[in-house]
Amino acid sequence: MLKKFSVRTAGRSQLINITGQVREAIRQSGVRDGLVTVYCPHTTAGITVNEGADPDVAGDLLRYLDNLCPWEHPLYFHSEGNTAAHMKAGIVGAAQAIPVVDGDLALGTWQAVFFCEFDGPRERKILVKIIEG
Amino acid sequence: MLKKFSVRTAGRSQLINITGQVREAIRQSGVRDGLVTVYCPHTTAGITVNEGADPDVAGDLLRYLDNLCPWEHPLYFHSEGNTAAHMKAGIVGAAQAIPVVDGDLALGTWQAVFFCEFDGPRERKILVKIIEG
Amino acid sequence: MLKKFSVRTAGRSQLINITGQVREAIRQSGVRDGLVTVYCPHTTAGITVNEGADPDVAGDLLRYLDNLCPWEHPLYFHSEGNTAAHMKAGIVGAAQAIPVVDGDLALGTWQAVFFCEFDGPRERKILVKIIEG
Repeated sequence: MLKKFSVRTAGRSQLINITGQVREAIRQSGVRDGLVTVYCPHTTAGITVNEGADPDVAGDLLRYLDNLCPWEHPLYFHSEGNTAAHMKAGIVGAAQAIPVVDGDLALGTWQAVFFCEFDGPRERKILVKIIEG
Repeated sequence: MLKKFSVRTAGRSQLINITGQVREAIRQSGVRDGLVTVYCPHTTAGITVNEGADPDVAGDLLRYLDNLCPWEHPLYFHSEGNTAAHMKAGIVGAAQAIPVVDGDLALGTWQAVFFCEFDGPRERKILVKIIEG
Repeated sequence: MLKKFSVRTAGRSQLINITGQVREAIRQSGVRDGLVTVYCPHTTAGITVNEGADPDVAGDLLRYLDNLCPWEHPLYFHSEGNTAAHMKAGIVGAAQAIPVVDGDLALGTWQAVFFCEFDGPRERKILVKIIEG
């Protein structure tokens, strides 16, 4: 089962909680037990799981990634000027796998699924692949 | 097939080799060929594969992650004071996929599966999802 | 379905575009819809998805990872002297999952699959695990 949805990002860097959309994709698939892979088909964005309760966690992650990967650096040659976004995408990763149990995500108490925008604002696509088993 | 087990971590930061427990979960499942996903339902911990032979590798990884993500930083706003642990969890990742071949993990010679504690000591849960195919 | 292939890396650090080999493995498997996991059984190398169009992106990633994880550091104890390569492998990750749609990788327009050599030159193996579903 493959489901797709889009998100509209609002800033250059932003973490968007997409747990609800992934849950809905699993519900629509009818799969009770299996593995879901949330996949980002973009090279300046990614998918991660982290704390969804306190929004300061997502803010801290974005601020600290900016600190780790500054927008300007003498080592960057890529002419589009967004190497920092490609680097952050590589650190966070383009995919996140999560077990599906009883028709729902097997997330921990504090976990949420985030789409990570690193070079917005843009319209972005997300793929949700659900394997039964 | 979904298996669960717990580990008791002993320090604030620690890499624990869980290869044996993952192997045992695969054996119990009876699956000969497929894909295993080792999943961490916590937001200040993660799962990774790296060298298991020389314990200095795991030690170096923890020391260098501490260097990359210090415990105190003016960019951190999260009131619990463990942003560094959330950041490390995001770098390492919450899940690790490994092929299953002939009823066992298809690890390379030097690879081991590690649970990564970044804000212990705590009792932690680990999910092992095995898909046949 | 499990397919294997090798690459010969040419430098200490190198990103090699292996999209063609992964596509060919999927074609040989005959799987039309499912999930592919590209797996690296080495501890000083990894697999990632990033931009394949402008080779400066891959070059920037390697240069900036060298900056983040220098070869020499007082925190490194591992006697082989390649802790930086183990650290980069941990950042990038040993596996990359990508949905399979209509018998092909569901990559975004600018995405390519890269084998990441962090301690070459060497002969390296890559596993391609394809799950139908």
